[in-house]
Amino acid sequence: MNPQEPAIQPQGRLRKRRSDGEKSRAAILDEATRLATIEGIGGLSIGRLAEAVGMSKSGLYAHFRSKEELQLAIVDTASELFADQVVAPSEHANSALARLEILADRYLHYIEIDNFPGGCFFASVLAEVDMHPGAVRDRLVAFLGDWLGRLEAGVHDAQAEGSIRADEDAAQLAFEIEAALFLANAQYVVTHTRAPLDRARTSIERRLAAATAK
Amino acid sequence: MNPQEPAIQPQGRLRKRRSDGEKSRAAILDEATRLATIEGIGGLSIGRLAEAVGMSKSGLYAHFRSKEELQLAIVDTASELFADQVVAPSEHANSALARLEILADRYLHYIEIDNFPGGCFFASVLAEVDMHPGAVRDRLVAFLGDWLGRLEAGVHDAQAEGSIRADEDAAQLAFEIEAALFLANAQYVVTHTRAPLDRARTSIERRLAAATAK
Repeated sequence: MNPQEPAIQPQGRLRKRRSDGEKSRAAILDEATRLATIEGIGGLSIGRLAEAVGMSKSGLYAHFRSKEELQLAIVDTASELFADQVVAPSEHANSALARLEILADRYLHYIEIDNFPGGCFFASVLAEVDMHPGAVRDRLVAFLGDWLGRLEAGVHDAQAEGSIRADEDAAQLAFEIEAALFLANAQYVVTHTRAPLDRARTSIERRLAAATAK
Repeated sequence: MNPQEPAIQPQGRLRKRRSDGEKSRAAILDEATRLATIEGIGGLSIGRLAEAVGMSKSGLYAHFRSKEELQLAIVDTASELFADQVVAPSEHANSALARLEILADRYLHYIEIDNFPGGCFFASVLAEVDMHPGAVRDRLVAFLGDWLGRLEAGVHDAQAEGSIRADEDAAQLAFEIEAALFLANAQYVVTHTRAPLDRARTSIERRLAAATAK
């Protein structure tokens, strides 16, 4: 895969100018998203987080009035990072097929640069909370629905432009792309080698080649 | 996929005759493996488990002297169930290709019959402990290495018998089969619909058809 690179690169996690109060909140959430992929978003107490960021518990409570409010802010922080690093680079693609390729490539890059010690935030945290109904699970499920919907819409758009065969089942093809990405992340977390990332690239490249064959 | 069914069916979770002491241990572990996929294997205290099985904490300590001993026994219990339900049915296949097809089919069946409320025990628990070095993580990583090795060996054997093309990369093909199974499990846990299981079957069937094309 050799996706077209976007004209404008994302500029990292804390890319916006912020007031002091916002900076502090951003620094807390930056640490909290990382810790959530190690200790779990449920295991992350306000006390433990206060210790990790060097603040008092009462200082943290000034930012987040409850554990659930903190958890939802963590999910939103990770979602914003994902939007910057994975989705935004795809938006200037010059074809729907190139957009799909960029989404897959940028997802693997988002894993490889170790944004989170426990790999993809969403895979890690949804595996933890999938059996715990509530607002946190709902937001993660919605996020993943959006992601899969984005892949599926990309396939539909590529069919409309004529680059992917009309007889491909878009939901099936989106499933197969996501399957390679999802396993690549899980194996990368355990092995910390590039091999699973390369296998996912090979798999998706081959699958898209079959889908574009005349 | 229409794999050959094995002559001997697996006979369920508690299939062996056991003494009273062993029965009690088996009943505890049966409940503990289920709970581990909901609350996490780290979140499962001896106190919580004692409550779930209606025993005293001291009664449980008579079976498991430490939390780690309990956790390792839980992993072994799930491994035995997996061997019975997924691996054993493949052993009487009349070709290496049929063995691969049976392994994939039985894995999806093992998900679909809801052995564990949180889906595949190994996917659920490894996602939890992947950032926690120790004996539990080691045993799960070894289990998954064995599983992937089994798929890869199946591809090699199918190449040796001439049913899979010699130019296929066995590790790559094993990755792609596992990717479909792994995502099917994750989506099944969230949606509790057959759709992801069907997508995995379609994906693997198609991939093996491409690998066997002359």
